[in-house]
This record gives sequence, structure tokens and C-alpha cells, in this order.
Amino acid sequence: MPRNLQNEDSILRKIVDSFRSSQPARAGRSVSLGIGDDAALFRPKPGHETILTCDWFLEGTHFLRQKHPPEAVGWKCLARAVSDVAAMGAAPRCFLLSLALPETHTGRWLELFLRGVRRAARDFQCALAGGDTTRRNEILINVTVVGEVRTGFAVPRSGARQGDLLYVSGTLGEAELGLQLVLREKSFASRKNPLLKKHLYPEPRLELGRWLAEQKIATAMIDLSDGLSSDLSRLCAASAVGALLEKSKIPKVQIPKVALKHGHDPLQLALHGGDDYELLFTVLPRKAKLLPRTFKGVGLTAIGRITRGRKLLLLEEDGHVSQLVPRGWDPFREKL
Amino acid sequence: MPRNLQNEDSILRKIVDSFRSSQPARAGRSVSLGIGDDAALFRPKPGHETILTCDWFLEGTHFLRQKHPPEAVGWKCLARAVSDVAAMGAAPRCFLLSLALPETHTGRWLELFLRGVRRAARDFQCALAGGDTTRRNEILINVTVVGEVRTGFAVPRSGARQGDLLYVSGTLGEAELGLQLVLREKSFASRKNPLLKKHLYPEPRLELGRWLAEQKIATAMIDLSDGLSSDLSRLCAASAVGALLEKSKIPKVQIPKVALKHGHDPLQLALHGGDDYELLFTVLPRKAKLLPRTFKGVGLTAIGRITRGRKLLLLEEDGHVSQLVPRGWDPFREKL
Repeated sequence: MPRNLQNEDSILRKIVDSFRSSQPARAGRSVSLGIGDDAALFRPKPGHETILTCDWFLEGTHFLRQKHPPEAVGWKCLARAVSDVAAMGAAPRCFLLSLALPETHTGRWLELFLRGVRRAARDFQCALAGGDTTRRNEILINVTVVGEVRTGFAVPRSGARQGDLLYVSGTLGEAELGLQLVLREKSFASRKNPLLKKHLYPEPRLELGRWLAEQKIATAMIDLSDGLSSDLSRLCAASAVGALLEKSKIPKVQIPKVALKHGHDPLQLALHGGDDYELLFTVLPRKAKLLPRTFKGVGLTAIGRITRGRKLLLLEEDGHVSQLVPRGWDPFREKL
Repeated sequence: MPRNLQNEDSILRKIVDSFRSSQPARAGRSVSLGIGDDAALFRPKPGHETILTCDWFLEGTHFLRQKHPPEAVGWKCLARAVSDVAAMGAAPRCFLLSLALPETHTGRWLELFLRGVRRAARDFQCALAGGDTTRRNEILINVTVVGEVRTGFAVPRSGARQGDLLYVSGTLGEAELGLQLVLREKSFASRKNPLLKKHLYPEPRLELGRWLAEQKIATAMIDLSDGLSSDLSRLCAASAVGALLEKSKIPKVQIPKVALKHGHDPLQLALHGGDDYELLFTVLPRKAKLLPRTFKGVGLTAIGRITRGRKLLLLEEDGHVSQLVPRGWDPFREKL
């Protein structure tokens, strides 16, 4: 048998072995069987609801084989799915990993990829529970995350009402700027470049999401995956409301000196850039005083308010109001 | 805006609308939010464990766009994931559907595909709970199924012990024969051809799986997705045992007259053909009398027994014993 003959079971074995000693202890206890049986068993905590979410992460669409380090691909495929759990105010517990790989990527690439997944799984306290592998010319990834939230405490997209204040965590546009820098470089992205951190290793706002849910502060919440303009539009559509954004208040990315020459516009990056994985949420005005200015080091900024009309409006510094068109990332629009 | 301009949200909307009036009532009650929010909420029944499984269904690897009717693609992508739930002795409750589609397939193809998914969801009492869509040149599908089983009643692959009898449901090799017929035809497969039924519209053995689990009859169980030789090998590896198969007892496909000229070998189809989605399970000898010869119209056949050695052996009609090599479907071997 040639040394590098791989089959489906041996790749599954590699994944299981890679996770054997490093399953998050707390999350691991709730999962049994896992990879290697037909299905995994999950025991939710009493008094909690189970949260389910899944996410594509596809070569060419969501990452580039020639540009993105395999560790970052591993980290990010889990981080972005976990971010949906954060946006419900829930805690992740376990995940299923579906992998389609070229034969050439079942060795070193897979090892580094799994190292990234493992680091993310440990940081997010989310245990590997199962998956499916197959061969493919392109690298295809699909991640399902299972989480938990106290019954009745999940924060939907649909709870925003006229008069609610609109908040966002962190700084917007950094991930998009990171992507632009990566695309501009001829070489492989350095995983240690601090300007690329948010693009390569985004951190889902799990603690913030849970706190907002448990304190019943947020009336509606969504994570910013495709860009503020698009995700705000989704939150408003789900809540059947509109919003007025104040341009001057949006916490925008600072363009570093090295990138100044490329003429990036911080506002455009912040409004339409994808992959920030910050939380966008709405708050009743009387509860706004409960919100600190930063939560565990992450800034919380009021950027506008919810209105009755279904429109998204942008208030300029000079008092002029213009319509905000969703122009965040949309795989079905990219082509047009 | 051009009439057929599709975006991610409009495709999601199409999926949601297509399921609005047809969610299985029983399963639907346990799922809330669902598609359109960041994640779905699932409430498991008290005294039950949650089962999780996911499955790829990829154009070119698992089906052919030019050969397989979209309804069959829809039915089968859910059926095969649900079959993993059947193999645990569990009941499916809800599923997440990840779809990557070419722009050209977001109209009629998507409608017919969703019709197939919907029919399967109704038959299996499994509600659509969420998903993710993106654009891609090829059709990529990933399905996660969430199910339930009474705590402590799930049947793993690892419970087979020396002396246990080995059983299989139904007839083996029909799906593989159907695939061969489809590949041979120049035209699109007819979804009404009875010879193709098992290949296009497999039926996971949900009732049988649950009955075997609830009666505590099966000591180990797996569904036949890649072929008897490969899946038996997996069950034996998980249980650290071997098996002796009796060639004469294997319920083999009957080759229909129309296909006789192609020289199909029923035994090879039954041993190594994929996609049957029958159940392979082991039973303590003293419990074998509890097994009927058919269960709700599906035959149950003893085909061998579990042995101590780790080998898979095949007992020929003349008493000769040969080693059985796993030669079922393996995406990583196909290429070699």
C-alpha cells in the first residue's frame, strides 16, 4: 500500500486523533459517541434550549488556498459559525465538521487546519462531535454548531421596536481592510501581521452576547458577517422597522500608514465590509444606562436608533439624511 | 432591477416560503425561529438525548446534474442523513440545509429540488430548522439532521460481541444496480422507473431502527451507505471483533431481464454496492427469536455471525472460507 494512500476512514481517524487530548472539558462532557459512529449524542442542560446553526466556508468564495494560512482557515470556519450562536445570546457546546479535500491536502495542510480548528474549539469551549469527509478538487467546509441558551432568553433578530437605540460592539471595517491587504500581497498572508488579525482570526463576541441576553438588555441582535448595511437591513426586515444611523458615531477602522496610499475609505469599509463578527443590537432607551462603554475590553457604541418607516437612513455630519443601500457581501450579487 | 436578479436573502425566502405550509406538525412544534434568524431553537423531549449527524451531497461525487432529477436530489440528500439517525435507533426531528447553487439553478431547479426535500421532510417527520445558502458553479449540499432517542437507548456501532448474530434489512445491491442503469442511459433518469426507485428515493429504515433500539434487540447497528463490505468492516472495527458472512444467505438484488445483458453480478452488487440505506445490526442469539422475518414489509435476514478475530470472512456455498476485503464506495479510493 503506498504510504500516502488515504481513505475516508483514515482521514476521519486523523481528525479524531487530533482532537482526542484537547476536547474542551466542560463542553466535552455533554457529548458522547461523536465522530466514528453514525451520529453524535448531545445532552442539553435542563432548563435550556438547543441552538442550531450551520455555515459554509468554501475555497474561492470565503477563503483562498494560495493566500490564507490553513490554521486561519481552521480557526475562522468555526469562529464564524460560533458567531451566530453569540448573536442569539447562547453558548456553543459542540460542532460537526464536514470537510471535502483534495488528496494533496490530507497531509500537512490538514494538520495545520485542524490545529486552527482545535485552538478555536478550546477558546470557544465547543467540542468536536462528528462530521463527514469526502474527496474533492476544491476545499469545501461546512460547520454546524450546537449551542444552548436558557429557555426564553434567546435574542432574535425580530425584537427591535421604534425608539430602540442601536448599538454595535468593537470597530467596523478592520476585517475588510485585512482582506484587501491580503489580496494585494503576492505572497501567503502572514498569520502574525496584526493588521490581519481580525480578518484571519475573528473573535465571536460570546461573552457579550450572553451577558446581553441574560440581563435582557438587547431586544434584537445579529452578528455582522456580511457588513453593517446588509446585516442592519436584515435585522430591520425581521423586526418590520427601519433605522437611522449616525455617520459620525460609527466606530470606524483606522487606516494604518502602510495602507494609506491605497485610498481606502474608513466609512465605506465600516458600512459595507464583511467578516467583522461584531454584534449589532437594539436596546430600550431606559435600559441604555445599564450598558458600560466597554465590555471586557470591547467598545460598545450607540450608532443610531430604530424608526417606524422601513427605510435605512444615514444622518450625515451636516444634518443631511440620505438613504443607506445594503451593499455588504452577497455571494449572489458579486457576479452581477 | 432585472427580474431574475437573485440575492442570498431572496433565495432564503424562497426556501422558507416553500416550507411554510408543509412543516411536519409533530416535528415542527419542537423547532422555533428557524431559517431567517442567526440560528434555530430546538427543544428536545424530556428524558431524551439529542442525536446529531451531517452528510455531504455533492454534484459529481454523489449525484450528477445531467442525470439525476432535482426532486430525487432533494429527497436523497435528506434521506441519507436521516438514515444515520435510523441507525442509532433514533427519530429525526429537524434539519439544517446548506445549499450552494449556480445562479442558473435558483429558479425551476431549486423549486423541484425543494419539492423533493419537502416530501422527504414530511415522510420522515423532520422539520426544516435553518440553513445557509451561497453561490457556486457546482451544486453543493450539506445536510445536518437533529434527532432524539430515549436516554440510554441509542444503538452504537461498537456493541457487537463474539457470537452475536448478524442481520440485515431488505435486499442489497438494488441501489448500485440503479446507479449503473442511470450511468448507462444517455438521458435524464426517469423518476418513475421502478428499477431506479431505491437509487433515487431510498427509504431510511426509521421504524425498524427505533423498534430494535426500544426493544433492546440490537447490540450494534450501522446503516449501509457505502456497501456491506465497507460498513461491516466499520462496525467490526468499532466493536473490535470480526465477522463470518454466509454468502448464500445474503439477500441479493435480482437482475431484471432488461439489464441481464450487461453482466451485473448480484453478489458483487450486494457486497460492495453503495446507497442501500438498509440497516446492518447484531443480535444476541437468545434474542433472535424476537425478530420477525419481516418488519412492516421489510425482510430481516440473518447473514452471518460475529467472531473474535478481527477478520471479515466469507463462507462460500462449498464450505470454503475466503477473506472479504472492504471494497465499498470510498471517495478517497475512487481516484487510485
